[in-house]
Amino acid sequence: MERCLTMERVRATYRIETPGDVHKAAESLAGEQSSGTFVEVPGEDETLRNRFRARVESVTERNAAEVPSLPGSRPPGSRYRRADVTVSWSVENFGYNLPTLVSTLQGNLYELAQFSGLKLMDFEVPPSFADRFRGPAFGIAGTRRLTGVEGRPLIGTIIKPSVGLSPEQTASIVSELAGAGVDFIKDDELMADPPHSPFNKRVSAVMDVLRRHADRAGKRVMYAFNISGELDTMHRHYDAIVNAEGTCAMVSINSVGLAAAKAVCDRGELAVHAHRNGWGMLNRHPLLGIDFRAYQKLWRLAGVDQIHVNGIANKFWEPDDSVVHSIESCLEPFLGGHSVMPVVSSGQWGGQAPETWRRTRTLDLLYMAGGGIMAHPDGPAGGVRALRQAWEAAVAGLSLEEAGRRHPELARSIAKFGGKG
Amino acid sequence: MERCLTMERVRATYRIETPGDVHKAAESLAGEQSSGTFVEVPGEDETLRNRFRARVESVTERNAAEVPSLPGSRPPGSRYRRADVTVSWSVENFGYNLPTLVSTLQGNLYELAQFSGLKLMDFEVPPSFADRFRGPAFGIAGTRRLTGVEGRPLIGTIIKPSVGLSPEQTASIVSELAGAGVDFIKDDELMADPPHSPFNKRVSAVMDVLRRHADRAGKRVMYAFNISGELDTMHRHYDAIVNAEGTCAMVSINSVGLAAAKAVCDRGELAVHAHRNGWGMLNRHPLLGIDFRAYQKLWRLAGVDQIHVNGIANKFWEPDDSVVHSIESCLEPFLGGHSVMPVVSSGQWGGQAPETWRRTRTLDLLYMAGGGIMAHPDGPAGGVRALRQAWEAAVAGLSLEEAGRRHPELARSIAKFGGKG
Repeated sequence: MERCLTMERVRATYRIETPGDVHKAAESLAGEQSSGTFVEVPGEDETLRNRFRARVESVTERNAAEVPSLPGSRPPGSRYRRADVTVSWSVENFGYNLPTLVSTLQGNLYELAQFSGLKLMDFEVPPSFADRFRGPAFGIAGTRRLTGVEGRPLIGTIIKPSVGLSPEQTASIVSELAGAGVDFIKDDELMADPPHSPFNKRVSAVMDVLRRHADRAGKRVMYAFNISGELDTMHRHYDAIVNAEGTCAMVSINSVGLAAAKAVCDRGELAVHAHRNGWGMLNRHPLLGIDFRAYQKLWRLAGVDQIHVNGIANKFWEPDDSVVHSIESCLEPFLGGHSVMPVVSSGQWGGQAPETWRRTRTLDLLYMAGGGIMAHPDGPAGGVRALRQAWEAAVAGLSLEEAGRRHPELARSIAKFGGKG
Repeated sequence: MERCLTMERVRATYRIETPGDVHKAAESLAGEQSSGTFVEVPGEDETLRNRFRARVESVTERNAAEVPSLPGSRPPGSRYRRADVTVSWSVENFGYNLPTLVSTLQGNLYELAQFSGLKLMDFEVPPSFADRFRGPAFGIAGTRRLTGVEGRPLIGTIIKPSVGLSPEQTASIVSELAGAGVDFIKDDELMADPPHSPFNKRVSAVMDVLRRHADRAGKRVMYAFNISGELDTMHRHYDAIVNAEGTCAMVSINSVGLAAAKAVCDRGELAVHAHRNGWGMLNRHPLLGIDFRAYQKLWRLAGVDQIHVNGIANKFWEPDDSVVHSIESCLEPFLGGHSVMPVVSSGQWGGQAPETWRRTRTLDLLYMAGGGIMAHPDGPAGGVRALRQAWEAAVAGLSLEEAGRRHPELARSIAKFGGKG
């Protein structure tokens, strides 16, 4: 095995900015993440160094800036050079240890004074990772199977207001939404197990409604219950969902963290809905943090089945190009084919369907609308119908206006939400 | 209980930057993190809103900038106003749920287009949190008790090279370091359980050495074994340390995450050494992420006993003011008095002791030197002696030069490392 391990390598690509030479900066990066200290130490002989050192695979210089992106780089310069740098490590350095892989790929790098900017853009793992990491147990195919939805995006919504509703009030809204035809409903990320809506009571009340709905309408609505909390609590809440015949657990992945989220995913009985709240902190700066392509790979290794990607013309800061890039990343094969379902949300009401389709050409989306469904002039049923109409129109190549002339519900969505798209 | 909960509030302070009005931006922040969607929804009546809404407690306007700190804010302006904003939530919103507290305090905020910068600076929890969260089981007092070191900083070091050594090679270095008089030794964050140094073998080899050393010298050296990994593995490795009579487990807290780290801390049999690698991503930008004061409180709630703070004149980007602020944060009472031991490291060799003492006036530090010990001209024993001499001199009010004239080991440290301080 050791022979095999020494030949397999993990490769990572960074976008860097440095006041010095980009090649030297790349070597610092590799040194810090394999054997770095500020003086040579006894015991670190050449053989050891060669076997375990990170290797700079390529350096592609880009533009330069006159102002550093981040404070604290040394020495202060008049130009800050940018480059894309690929570095590789032998798998032997860390074995198959996800947190230590993260510490190696990111770790102290953001603190190095050689850099005035550093972002992990992507990484690649060798095929042996597929033997050690199952990836998403459900993913796109499993989510479709659990909900019985094929040939179109799943239409989902969020319980609002985020906080304050009792389990009975939540169940009553769920009943209305299920009747309206939604495929998927989720708790808000601010709602987990507060005193006014104890988790088990909410599960019981909601699942009573959804079981009855399934019996009556033959349609199984997926509800993502937010289990985010301490580890024991998450396991207990997971059990409660399984026992109530639920199909999905939601985890605020950044708040819960990688090791606990993986422990949840490893159970494999429920689809895991990954909410990425906190993501802006890790990504909004162009030269700090981690790009979504690398981020979603980490979470696919952990095994999440659905992950948030924002949406076209969203209410947040994120530009459309970035959203499209995120959706494409989720659909790329990884670990020999495991998929993760992109969750489109934020200010969506159907008006964005044509542009989402035009740019991504995929229907493998969980398409979430909050107000776009609940605040539809005809009520939630009208909101859901309008969303489906918008997607059918998009795939048929119709403009939103053309589709609105054919479908009254969509016409009313356009009239109400069209100015806010 | 409900009555009590509705009166208790969590308060958080943010540094914000916005192209709009700072008061309106503060209200957006509060709205997003309690009940936000882009349209009014039925069911959200005024009573519910008042009970659960986040409240803007204060807005203190600061300077303004002509260039936005982060991309994507709307509408584009010619001035970007800055302010410190305090917001509060009823504990009723989330109960005592640490990940959901994080999702509430941070969550989607970094993505709001109203902001061109946002950093969580600090937060305060009501006294009832002390009943639900034990905080560090060992902290400063427990770490001192386990190592038998009083009246001076603990002197620690890191096994280098980071990766590549076999368990036997590691144990041999540990033997030399223990003989040299160090109080504390740690694995590198890149070293957890790789094929060339299986965790259990490393624990066995290292603890054999340290038990023999304790028997012979009457001194118990604390070794922080890096258990970072998947949850089951962390528990197994924790057991291995306990069984071998070790006293400390190290966790890469950002890579492992909050819920799993808390599960480890909750066991309470070992001091938990929190390595913050990845921290630069969360903090290096002045208007994005989280300040160390807030960060260390989250990890004290999780229960870590020791946490990295960088050091004066470190090899990383961080300015001394920021390091001093971090050390002071760790020493502030929290949860009714629980302390966390600041771990000073990065390019330390003793030369920084006078300035560290002058600015913090504390000896409650785990003072780490890597090359400063291992590469000392007299060998590690000389390195440890020089570090202790530097600290004695600092407390006695001597300059480094004066102390160097009295102590030959310190003099040789100054000669070797003085140019790099």
